[in-house]
Amino acid sequence: MNIRFYNGLICSMAKKIEITSDEEIWVKENKIAYLGPAKSSDFKFDREIDLKGNLLMPGFKNAHAHSAMTFLRSKADDLPLMDWLNYKIFPMEAKLKSEHVYYFSLLAILEYLTSGITAVMDMYFFQDEMVKASIDVGFRSVIVSGTCGEDLNCVKKMEQDYLKFNKIHELISALIGFHAEYSNSNEMLKCISQVAQKHKAPVFTHNSESKREVDDCIKKSGMTPTEYLNSLGLFDFGGGCFHCVHLSENDFEIFKQKGIAAISCPGSNCKLASGIAPVSDMLNFGIKVALGTDGPASNNALDMFREMFTVTALQKIRNADAASLDAIKVLEMATKFGARVMGLEDCDSLAPGKLADLIVIDLQQPNMQPLNNVLKNLVYSGSKQNVKLTMINGRILYENGVFNVSVDPEKIYKTVNEMNSYYKN
Amino acid sequence: MNIRFYNGLICSMAKKIEITSDEEIWVKENKIAYLGPAKSSDFKFDREIDLKGNLLMPGFKNAHAHSAMTFLRSKADDLPLMDWLNYKIFPMEAKLKSEHVYYFSLLAILEYLTSGITAVMDMYFFQDEMVKASIDVGFRSVIVSGTCGEDLNCVKKMEQDYLKFNKIHELISALIGFHAEYSNSNEMLKCISQVAQKHKAPVFTHNSESKREVDDCIKKSGMTPTEYLNSLGLFDFGGGCFHCVHLSENDFEIFKQKGIAAISCPGSNCKLASGIAPVSDMLNFGIKVALGTDGPASNNALDMFREMFTVTALQKIRNADAASLDAIKVLEMATKFGARVMGLEDCDSLAPGKLADLIVIDLQQPNMQPLNNVLKNLVYSGSKQNVKLTMINGRILYENGVFNVSVDPEKIYKTVNEMNSYYKN
Repeated sequence: MNIRFYNGLICSMAKKIEITSDEEIWVKENKIAYLGPAKSSDFKFDREIDLKGNLLMPGFKNAHAHSAMTFLRSKADDLPLMDWLNYKIFPMEAKLKSEHVYYFSLLAILEYLTSGITAVMDMYFFQDEMVKASIDVGFRSVIVSGTCGEDLNCVKKMEQDYLKFNKIHELISALIGFHAEYSNSNEMLKCISQVAQKHKAPVFTHNSESKREVDDCIKKSGMTPTEYLNSLGLFDFGGGCFHCVHLSENDFEIFKQKGIAAISCPGSNCKLASGIAPVSDMLNFGIKVALGTDGPASNNALDMFREMFTVTALQKIRNADAASLDAIKVLEMATKFGARVMGLEDCDSLAPGKLADLIVIDLQQPNMQPLNNVLKNLVYSGSKQNVKLTMINGRILYENGVFNVSVDPEKIYKTVNEMNSYYKN
Repeated sequence: MNIRFYNGLICSMAKKIEITSDEEIWVKENKIAYLGPAKSSDFKFDREIDLKGNLLMPGFKNAHAHSAMTFLRSKADDLPLMDWLNYKIFPMEAKLKSEHVYYFSLLAILEYLTSGITAVMDMYFFQDEMVKASIDVGFRSVIVSGTCGEDLNCVKKMEQDYLKFNKIHELISALIGFHAEYSNSNEMLKCISQVAQKHKAPVFTHNSESKREVDDCIKKSGMTPTEYLNSLGLFDFGGGCFHCVHLSENDFEIFKQKGIAAISCPGSNCKLASGIAPVSDMLNFGIKVALGTDGPASNNALDMFREMFTVTALQKIRNADAASLDAIKVLEMATKFGARVMGLEDCDSLAPGKLADLIVIDLQQPNMQPLNNVLKNLVYSGSKQNVKLTMINGRILYENGVFNVSVDPEKIYKTVNEMNSYYKN
């Protein structure tokens, strides 16, 4: 489909983060064909969409999630962390069936669409199912392996999947990763490092989410998790770490030197009482920071608006400074920085040749009025209710509250609820 | 209108906070006429609404706002508190015109409806305008005076308004209040205390929002703001305090003894970097706690879903305990406790004879699935997008994203934007 968007505000995120009101955007097949003043086109549009003054911008990038954990949403809340993990999450995950993961992933993807999220970096079990769900809906996923344990065959599988997923479909890409320092044997981590070195690939993992995890690593190795993982060569080609709540000064140095990105998950860090990540300190230090929702068992929403408000709210509290982490920086984290961390440079902004992953924000709702500052409204008073349209790879998948996908949402809800009875705790 | 709601889940909040699935609710004129199993009615329904499995519950009560501050939304963000107040907010408020306040209030009320908020306790300038806006829309407002300064005539006006607003319209009630300890002379506070004593009325005010405010009061009077205000007899008939971020142990005792409620505004406290209120400590101590959005200049959303998540998120961080402030307690704060603090016992729950202020929550959206625990979903993954219907005083004012009010939202947006150019800063 070729689509023309006109008569709206555009925040391309291409250079400066600012809004233009005299431009239009043309989508040709799956790419942006033109962004600029109105002019005549040399191809025919299948649809011309009058934005009516609303805002068009790049879609949000969810840089950390375990999508299929939808099945655990509200199944175990308001519990101390270790009870939550050991008595609720792990036992239920141990029963997990691959055919269920397909439906649990579909449910998450629908939620992403309602929040204007156009891509996710996903780490979970049975990754073929998330890949299938993404392709079936038309959603963009970056699959990152969550290798853990001590069985070296898992590293082989990790490498196979990495190669397989990177050529399976235009909507899918893959990154090398492992669950965490504390959930892998030293042998495993060395093996993963070898694979990363072989492919000159960045590596992604959970890191320094809880204080206990850091203390345990120091006790065991004399190093912080960042120092320890780095000593194994795991970050020689960069990568990213999820959470990064408890980092040392030297960890900051390593992040900067190795070009490691921090993926902050403020909602999850609150809900599991992990702490407040030093996001503004990291940004000021020159570390790249992206945003993630984490999984729906620990957040429990997959809503980038909530993450955007929460991340800046927490920084203002942490630093006792209302000027901390301004809205524009938050928007960059949620879009451009996220895309780059995920290896999706083609979706980091709106410009000719970039992939058409974009959203339209409804400004004709009371929470977005008056239009004193549209971008600040987006972060400080915006809500997923303002998402009027979500387009991925040139296809409109969600518009005016209606899904335009090949799966039936009502049927997914029904199926997920039925499957869920299997995971009684 | 007489309306029957059937075939849904109901959380009446009447006794235990739980959900029933085999009951229906009848609304007759402006009250709940029946709640129980299906049976034949002795009156005719104008409309019968099939809830299709969705959730019906009492509307949210916003126990603290300055509604008309919509005009300042996103006009001054990411600034240190004192710069924000002295160079942005106060100068613009000094120019405020009463006829503008009507439209700024209308805009806030529309936003309340989208978030399922059915009543607000409002403190601002030109209160006749908020009263008029509320009546024109059909919204329920509790008007609390924000007396400040040193002109004792303002206290006379306060008393006159208190009496006037309490008999002006069934949707309007009034409470005695003043802006804050630091913004009133000692003479003023004594005078306000006399009026409260005369009417045996509870008193409401901002209290201990910032550390500096507390330190200044101690320096001046040797007492915390709570101790000082209490020493003047201001809380002899109870009342409530907005924010309560920085309270001492003795303040806790006074709150409990005098039956003073705390109205927590977590979003605003973050955005202005005021700190995290000791909400779970207050609740454990037996202090009543309600929730408020504060004004749209300092939040900037008027969204009770965001406040619900933020208040529990912050407690979990503050106490380093994921079990802090569970979702059910948060729901009570946002509905029942709020109503009682605002003097709206008639709207605190759904039961025969209570006023019909209720909302319907759409569960057929991905963020509310699966239905492992509907009430936890509401707090942890719910969003204003799930508000399917908002009824106040028996009238449906918002349904499926459409306002059913006598004012035209598009016209309000336009008018507010036009008026706003007057407040350039």
